[in-house]
Amino acid sequence: MSNHGDLGGLCVHQISFGLEHDFAACTEPLARAGVGLTAVWHDKLAKIGAARAARILRDSGVAAVSLCPGGILTQRAETEFRAALERNRRMLADAAEIGAATMVTISGGLDEGERDIRFARDRALEGLTRLVPEARAAGVKLALEPLSPVTCATRGVLTTTALTNDWWEAMDAPDVVGIALDSYAIWWDPGIMDQIARAAGRILNLHLADWRRDTRDLRFDRGMPGDGVIDIPGLIGAVRATGFTGPLEFELFSALDWWQRAPDETVAEIVRRYRTLTEPPA
Amino acid sequence: MSNHGDLGGLCVHQISFGLEHDFAACTEPLARAGVGLTAVWHDKLAKIGAARAARILRDSGVAAVSLCPGGILTQRAETEFRAALERNRRMLADAAEIGAATMVTISGGLDEGERDIRFARDRALEGLTRLVPEARAAGVKLALEPLSPVTCATRGVLTTTALTNDWWEAMDAPDVVGIALDSYAIWWDPGIMDQIARAAGRILNLHLADWRRDTRDLRFDRGMPGDGVIDIPGLIGAVRATGFTGPLEFELFSALDWWQRAPDETVAEIVRRYRTLTEPPA
Repeated sequence: MSNHGDLGGLCVHQISFGLEHDFAACTEPLARAGVGLTAVWHDKLAKIGAARAARILRDSGVAAVSLCPGGILTQRAETEFRAALERNRRMLADAAEIGAATMVTISGGLDEGERDIRFARDRALEGLTRLVPEARAAGVKLALEPLSPVTCATRGVLTTTALTNDWWEAMDAPDVVGIALDSYAIWWDPGIMDQIARAAGRILNLHLADWRRDTRDLRFDRGMPGDGVIDIPGLIGAVRATGFTGPLEFELFSALDWWQRAPDETVAEIVRRYRTLTEPPA
Repeated sequence: MSNHGDLGGLCVHQISFGLEHDFAACTEPLARAGVGLTAVWHDKLAKIGAARAARILRDSGVAAVSLCPGGILTQRAETEFRAALERNRRMLADAAEIGAATMVTISGGLDEGERDIRFARDRALEGLTRLVPEARAAGVKLALEPLSPVTCATRGVLTTTALTNDWWEAMDAPDVVGIALDSYAIWWDPGIMDQIARAAGRILNLHLADWRRDTRDLRFDRGMPGDGVIDIPGLIGAVRATGFTGPLEFELFSALDWWQRAPDETVAEIVRRYRTLTEPPA
């Protein structure tokens, strides 16, 4: 990333610009700001196809770190479960085509009417395990991502880093399975420092967002790092101490604030926050 | 509770009727419905004083199981921390005066500007430990209650049952310290069944509310048991298996639904849900 100077360790997720802006509109502001890494949101890619997405990235000089969000594999009905696996297979092919090293996978929540959270967890682990050979064949790693308990019902029964480490060990495929951690999802966890240490060598992605003290929405009111209660430098330090050398990835689900702004403005602020997080102390 | 027939194992928290109804208005509907147990909300008690509260309870034939919410002891400033301890001392006296066996304590969240969650946790444990001799003298037990990570920033850095068990052990006062569990706070926890088993003999209160799939508010949109995603019978069964014989306590923070209804209507529905939870299978 030498052509991106001091921003070489910064990745901005496409979703930080909201749901409306298309793939190109999420890529060009990064190029203009000198940000060379992005995480691709699959809904945006799907609208134009992987070949065109790959071309936009190449033309912009922006590389895809990962494709999000894969997984979502908690369906009880066999037909729906198989459809979800198939969706993941297509995503793995898309990830390979855009040159993303990882596909970030979330577990999925509870089916409508489902109250058996143990079943949902077993199902997700079963589905993720089935994807291992296909991920290996595609040359794309699966990054298991725990989500905040806030979204347990609807998005992620994988709620803790401890369970993520358990799953990583159960999957027994260290060449192709890793872990993605997000400050927003893990900060409240009393065991987080031990679990980050346990995840040494497994961490593929580090997502950053802050928990706003006056959070107004369960999913779409994340704050820019520095605007909330999370000790983000502390979490980065703990992850770095495991040997992780990857970029800092800004992932802002912020319908109530940042999504309402122009992407160029959001990128400019992300760059400022990134510099604050990475500049050496005076 | 023989005078309350088959509702003898039901407790309804005053807060289930919302913030507006006063102490008497939260007690009389219970008496009318034949519910003999309540959990007192301290804000309501404070408006009329403990002596008058005790008289209303006695006249209604409704007994106080607990006083809520004590604790909230994460203040960094010494003066504020001491004021919080003092508030708890007054609450212990109030709890004794209304004949409540326990004061439910939550840890408190993060001070404005605070990002050191470890400090906040240490502080709360320090404060709770300081209250032990006073609780013992008052003849009121402290029930440590973990809250959902959803309210970690503002209400409860004590986010897991594992940490609650750790604190219980660290406090080393089994005669006067116990644990309060709430289905709403613990259902997402992958380790919950093990931690409930570990809490055998420590559980003083069991609060019930459901997590609505389409939860619209971080704190005030709890569902009636049966209206959400939680396997509440499973959690009750696990708690009962530890030897817990206390009542089932309905605690509905529901500004968007139940708080807008008349208390008599809410009680009637609680009684129906309670019967569903306790009737033997056909």
